[in-house]
Amino acid sequence: MDIGRRDLLLSAAALTVGSSAIGRAAPDRPLGYAIVGLGSYGLGVIIPQFANCTHSRLAAVVSGDAAKAQRVAAEHGLPARSVYSYANFDTIRDNPDVDIVYVCLPNSMHAEYTIRAAKAGKHVMCEKPMAVSVAECEAMIAACKKANRKLMIGYRCHFEPFNLEAMRLARTGAAGKIRYVRTEHGFTQGSPSAWRLKRALAGGGSLMDMGVYSLQAARYMTGEEPIAVTARESTDRRDPRFTEVEDMIEWTLEFPSGAIAGCQSMYSANQNHILLMGDKGRIELEPATRYDGNHMWLGRDGREREVTPPAGPAKTQFAGQLDHLAQCVRSGREPIVSGEEGLRDMRIVEAIYRSAREGRTIRLDGRA
Amino acid sequence: MDIGRRDLLLSAAALTVGSSAIGRAAPDRPLGYAIVGLGSYGLGVIIPQFANCTHSRLAAVVSGDAAKAQRVAAEHGLPARSVYSYANFDTIRDNPDVDIVYVCLPNSMHAEYTIRAAKAGKHVMCEKPMAVSVAECEAMIAACKKANRKLMIGYRCHFEPFNLEAMRLARTGAAGKIRYVRTEHGFTQGSPSAWRLKRALAGGGSLMDMGVYSLQAARYMTGEEPIAVTARESTDRRDPRFTEVEDMIEWTLEFPSGAIAGCQSMYSANQNHILLMGDKGRIELEPATRYDGNHMWLGRDGREREVTPPAGPAKTQFAGQLDHLAQCVRSGREPIVSGEEGLRDMRIVEAIYRSAREGRTIRLDGRA
Repeated sequence: MDIGRRDLLLSAAALTVGSSAIGRAAPDRPLGYAIVGLGSYGLGVIIPQFANCTHSRLAAVVSGDAAKAQRVAAEHGLPARSVYSYANFDTIRDNPDVDIVYVCLPNSMHAEYTIRAAKAGKHVMCEKPMAVSVAECEAMIAACKKANRKLMIGYRCHFEPFNLEAMRLARTGAAGKIRYVRTEHGFTQGSPSAWRLKRALAGGGSLMDMGVYSLQAARYMTGEEPIAVTARESTDRRDPRFTEVEDMIEWTLEFPSGAIAGCQSMYSANQNHILLMGDKGRIELEPATRYDGNHMWLGRDGREREVTPPAGPAKTQFAGQLDHLAQCVRSGREPIVSGEEGLRDMRIVEAIYRSAREGRTIRLDGRA
Repeated sequence: MDIGRRDLLLSAAALTVGSSAIGRAAPDRPLGYAIVGLGSYGLGVIIPQFANCTHSRLAAVVSGDAAKAQRVAAEHGLPARSVYSYANFDTIRDNPDVDIVYVCLPNSMHAEYTIRAAKAGKHVMCEKPMAVSVAECEAMIAACKKANRKLMIGYRCHFEPFNLEAMRLARTGAAGKIRYVRTEHGFTQGSPSAWRLKRALAGGGSLMDMGVYSLQAARYMTGEEPIAVTARESTDRRDPRFTEVEDMIEWTLEFPSGAIAGCQSMYSANQNHILLMGDKGRIELEPATRYDGNHMWLGRDGREREVTPPAGPAKTQFAGQLDHLAQCVRSGREPIVSGEEGLRDMRIVEAIYRSAREGRTIRLDGRA
């Protein structure tokens, strides 16, 4: 049963994330990460997080911009041999400092660089969305399996204290029997030239980016796998930002228990919200999945009691995520958000797009 | 254009509701209301509100429970001739104290008592939902037109300061171009024996009751009429409360401007929420449409600034509603929430049910 499976995963997460504190002897040298893609996320968000890590360190950078790569390498004391271009990326196989490759590229490049990293003998952290199609996800999983390397998806919310506490509260019945999850993620896209608005790079619109947070939240808050999806897209195609990809998409997921999730993503307004409703009460997060500054409430009718979750074992959700894969590599355990988890989402993403396109409910459980 | 029409209506509302304060000479005797149905709403909510009215007074009661009717009449100093049963209701035509009949009965009885009241020469206030079918709504409008009597629907939110201020803010661009409205209304139905859970009395489930608030909010927040609806119902038919009517139903409305409304109603959890998102910001109400204790916020990303609306000219939304019809009767103006407004909602309600049943989008603008 999926509920049982996910409960096990949650327990595993707690154990794994906490293992440095509760047992293990002094850690070996931190594992080395190569960051592929020095855009705002790789450079601006991830690289500074190694300062918060226990088991992970920056070991290499990969970029199409040689000057930027050299500058970043110098700032972080990396040797010249740990600076790669996309052309010579495959030689990373010869760099013993690099244990893990973290793919922070536009979505359409995730599959290629994950597979090349696995072929180079490296474990892989791949940003969400895992790729732009189910076929790519399957190829990525196969490549990592063949190379006997770990594959983890950058689902940072599984290491974020508010979301972890919300999952725990949902699972322990704080809201009663789960009836409905509502979650919306969006932001106002500015420039029409952003790569996220180009189909060839992003593979889709808001669903591929913010929508993955809503989809993940629906799954980890219910602890179930959806059996059907009904979706509807709404995009103003006269808006110069949305000539190639969707702006807003809404979808309803149906779960085996009878619980329903109403999900949304959009690129034309700011939203960041998760609400779980049960027959005994509600668990609400807003903002729900930000880098920081999230808030959570319990209530019967609304936001009656604000909840501060216990601090996680990691200093930040990013450090928790980075160190988790490092620990999995050391211990041989599977990451709690593995390639299979990314593939599950991509199957649903494809069904969402198909439902919106065909104007009908798509079953996810193989039933007609 | 509907937008223009509704703007006019909003202006008319302000004028009409405010007229006692800004001009009119000392009012004539308050108009007399007969309350039909002494259930929790008629007896518990409406009758006490005459104490807050300027232009309206309680003049008669109609109930199937003679003892209860006599007790209520005595408590409010009504003469014995102003106590009616359903059997002798039509003799209300001979009672000069009664100007308006307020139908507070289960939904399936709205049409019959509205039409009988009109035939008895009385103006009619009818609780929402206006009836249980478009055909009934049309018959009610025709009966009132034939009798040259006013017909108003008990859409109290059009007299509620938070909702009025939210409409004004939306219309004056406080959120920018309107992109999306989200609204959910629900409560946890307790007893399986409640009349609202019986199809013969309620005509439907949560949509007929709380759903009407979500539908109204979508229309008055956007100021537009929907051109298409896509709906999905979700009901646990093993739940003894939901053997006859739906629990949860979600629907998406598409508006001519490109704005979208995601609406929901349910009988298995508590919700009372309106969120309007534009390209410049948000207007949010929660609780949104309660009898009192509503709250409203403006923000860019969330609830950044709480807003207290100016007090309305009426003491309460209920008094504003009751006095509005009384003033319309006196002045000959059409109520801002007339029978036609109720009919518009019922057309959409039927389309929502049809969309959910047939699993496809239903056009509301006559296009294929």
